[in-house]
Amino acid sequence: MLETIYGRQAIREALRAGRRVRRLLVARGARDSAVLRELAALAAEQGVPVQEVERTQLDRLADHHQGVAAEVDPYAYADLSDLLYAVRGTRPPLYLALDSLQDPQNFGSLLRTAAAVGVSGVVVPQHRAVGVTPGVRRASAGTVERLRVARVTNLVRALEQLKAAGVWVVGLDAAAPQRYDTVDASGPTALVVGSEEQGLGRLVRQTCDFVVSLPMEPGVESLNAAVAGSIVLYEYYRQRLPRE
Amino acid sequence: MLETIYGRQAIREALRAGRRVRRLLVARGARDSAVLRELAALAAEQGVPVQEVERTQLDRLADHHQGVAAEVDPYAYADLSDLLYAVRGTRPPLYLALDSLQDPQNFGSLLRTAAAVGVSGVVVPQHRAVGVTPGVRRASAGTVERLRVARVTNLVRALEQLKAAGVWVVGLDAAAPQRYDTVDASGPTALVVGSEEQGLGRLVRQTCDFVVSLPMEPGVESLNAAVAGSIVLYEYYRQRLPRE
Repeated sequence: MLETIYGRQAIREALRAGRRVRRLLVARGARDSAVLRELAALAAEQGVPVQEVERTQLDRLADHHQGVAAEVDPYAYADLSDLLYAVRGTRPPLYLALDSLQDPQNFGSLLRTAAAVGVSGVVVPQHRAVGVTPGVRRASAGTVERLRVARVTNLVRALEQLKAAGVWVVGLDAAAPQRYDTVDASGPTALVVGSEEQGLGRLVRQTCDFVVSLPMEPGVESLNAAVAGSIVLYEYYRQRLPRE
Repeated sequence: MLETIYGRQAIREALRAGRRVRRLLVARGARDSAVLRELAALAAEQGVPVQEVERTQLDRLADHHQGVAAEVDPYAYADLSDLLYAVRGTRPPLYLALDSLQDPQNFGSLLRTAAAVGVSGVVVPQHRAVGVTPGVRRASAGTVERLRVARVTNLVRALEQLKAAGVWVVGLDAAAPQRYDTVDASGPTALVVGSEEQGLGRLVRQTCDFVVSLPMEPGVESLNAAVAGSIVLYEYYRQRLPRE
């Protein structure tokens, strides 16, 4: 079944990444904008047909479609084993795992950070978590197209497999006493981010080698889950960068 | 003119902070939930009347009102001079300034991080930027109630005033060659975050003592503005924490 994605950056990245884009839908009269000219040129390069449609047809699809949408194959997930290859690479891999994240906006925005720090893969549970929907593809500004996302039936088992491959598993949980920046993340590392409301599940927490939190001023309860995950991803990325 | 705010945390924090809450509106039949009992008890403590309304009345207000809303005075902004007092305190202040941030969700989520790191104040331009609307109060999870937010007619002039008071002004701009973590932010510091699309304005950039960026893997163009600002705020907060 085809999906319809929207958002200028989401469509551009899908075309660039060579994801199977079947058709570009352009609102009648919108074709002359610079954005649409760029997308139409990219589509032409890839042999993707461009079709004019009534603007009202796009309105039914999304609030902010910017005059363009694309029919694509559903997001192609990777296998966990594809992600594990990175352990044998020259750079120690950084992984992101999500435990029950529900909000597509948060998921997309965390994927965008994951792409910026060059994670070797993202692990999400098949149940009790949002998948890579068109809304998530858009919220990630299209960066999900360059990421490998594995959907697993059992997150705990997937984390065990990462550990068996030599990866340190670090959970992020607002209640943890250990500070996030006391972990040495220069080796193979997976960061596990919990849901907006409940944090990490009990079994997931028990599987982690470390459970860490972000320090906060008294009286503040928590951060947005995507923001918290992004802060920790960047700290571990920063640790790996050459000193300036 | 009264405003109507919604969101459980936004209402709770407004009540706790002693902001002028005129009336709590509770959907008929929803009163028995634990959340509403807590809010009704807080309202009673503060002498705030509670009124039952039809659920449809709240539906007109917001998509996810959770059965409760509150009529409050509009957000009370601070003056820049109130913020500057912190320079004379024992802890070197950290400020957040926003240049033309448009998205209420991003603004709210950045305010939430600002509260977590205990900023001494937030500076926003009166024009070309979103104010503290009910949507922003909600997106901040109510944390904006404990922050001092100053609205200024001229952001460049406000930054000059901060500099004159001994504050180092650091701009965040994706194009800057200097890395964000090379700045010593242990003294009085203000971080300036630009808009989602354009980054920092030219004059604002010229006013900064440093302009820094987040390093990124090749091919990734930018991060969500709220996420990027939050990462840098946390790095400067981290620098100030005692070593563990």
